[in-house]
Amino acid sequence: MHFALRVVEIREKTVPIASAMANAFIDFSKMTCSVVALLTDVVRDGRPVVGYGFNSNGRYGQGSLMRERFFPRLMAADPAGLLDATGENLDPFRIWETLMKNEKPCGHGERSVAVGAIDMAVWDAVAKIAGKPLYQLLAERYRGGDADKKVWVYAAGGYYYPGKDLSALRQEMRGYLDLGYCHVKMKIGGAALAEDIRRIEAVLEVVGDGRFLAVDANGRFGLDEASAYGEALKQYNLFWY
Amino acid sequence: MHFALRVVEIREKTVPIASAMANAFIDFSKMTCSVVALLTDVVRDGRPVVGYGFNSNGRYGQGSLMRERFFPRLMAADPAGLLDATGENLDPFRIWETLMKNEKPCGHGERSVAVGAIDMAVWDAVAKIAGKPLYQLLAERYRGGDADKKVWVYAAGGYYYPGKDLSALRQEMRGYLDLGYCHVKMKIGGAALAEDIRRIEAVLEVVGDGRFLAVDANGRFGLDEASAYGEALKQYNLFWY
Repeated sequence: MHFALRVVEIREKTVPIASAMANAFIDFSKMTCSVVALLTDVVRDGRPVVGYGFNSNGRYGQGSLMRERFFPRLMAADPAGLLDATGENLDPFRIWETLMKNEKPCGHGERSVAVGAIDMAVWDAVAKIAGKPLYQLLAERYRGGDADKKVWVYAAGGYYYPGKDLSALRQEMRGYLDLGYCHVKMKIGGAALAEDIRRIEAVLEVVGDGRFLAVDANGRFGLDEASAYGEALKQYNLFWY
Repeated sequence: MHFALRVVEIREKTVPIASAMANAFIDFSKMTCSVVALLTDVVRDGRPVVGYGFNSNGRYGQGSLMRERFFPRLMAADPAGLLDATGENLDPFRIWETLMKNEKPCGHGERSVAVGAIDMAVWDAVAKIAGKPLYQLLAERYRGGDADKKVWVYAAGGYYYPGKDLSALRQEMRGYLDLGYCHVKMKIGGAALAEDIRRIEAVLEVVGDGRFLAVDANGRFGLDEASAYGEALKQYNLFWY
């Protein structure tokens, strides 16, 4: 069986995801996010397979880096060198190596956002070409086929927001419970300790118990403040701090 | 005394510094570098002061990040908020805070290259506005005025280069000595150990003693290879490895 398998094009669009919310370190007033589409010439269900990827909120879109360094490397590579041993699908690891050619070592910074979003699109394409969900493909390749049927998640919210009072915070958390979440995370460290304690107690009224609540200071604290918060939070038996 | 002191404009130009040379990790076939000009409205010697900055070889130019995030923040800031307490010069720390507004913590990645090159241009402008060399300004501010009259430097070269033989390597190193350098650094780890030993011995013929030679594997080695090189290099009493 022969496939004319190659990446035909790769596109990025930077999407504004600006909002007035804030954590203890940054606000999101100019936040953007990259959405990546990896177009292949493989046809599934009558349409060319497209892999999609995006990056998380907080480090801004990285379309410029993609267009300057990573897309050109991918498109300049010999297509055969990007395939796995069967020749019937893309090899995400070979593509990763191609993207990172002539990049100095280390995994930090904007580059990891750019390459990570592309990598997500590659894996999405790989699963679509293989004709199965990605979780199943990963389980078959790396876990003897044993895929978890469920995965633990939590709702990450509780940001600071202009005019957001305790009632609005409670309402937000009640919304997560209504969606089926039992664990939630909220931001701390963007207000004084006493105010954060009031916010935490308000959320506890909703989620019922500290073991359903995690708090996130987003790296804002020095040792003294971190210790003071730790002491004050001890009594609530939180899921994590 | 009143100054109409503000940053009028900030510009970046990405300059190709591509070459066929390589270290153990990357080649520089598509390398670029950012050059930054910070234009102020302060006049010295009849001309507006311009601060210049650039980034080091190896992490590519970062003009896109500057134009997307860092220049807009700088130009949107209240000019008075970028001045030091005297109001007669820029404050590099306030400018740094402005550049890094709404950036998540950590100092890694492309962002540090972009902000670092801008920071260099800011300090250059600060020294020119103050009308003295930057080393003297820094010594006066942070070292009780005690500036070193000399600074130790070494010549960093000895890259891998297509067709570069031992004779060319010796010639390169002789050129550094002719320029007045006594210490040199060369790349290792881009060839087999035996070949690197021949290269090292060739350079030692020129510099005369291992204490004038440092070697740089650019993070290429795992533990075993690093140890093997360490054992083999012991006898040369190198300046560093």
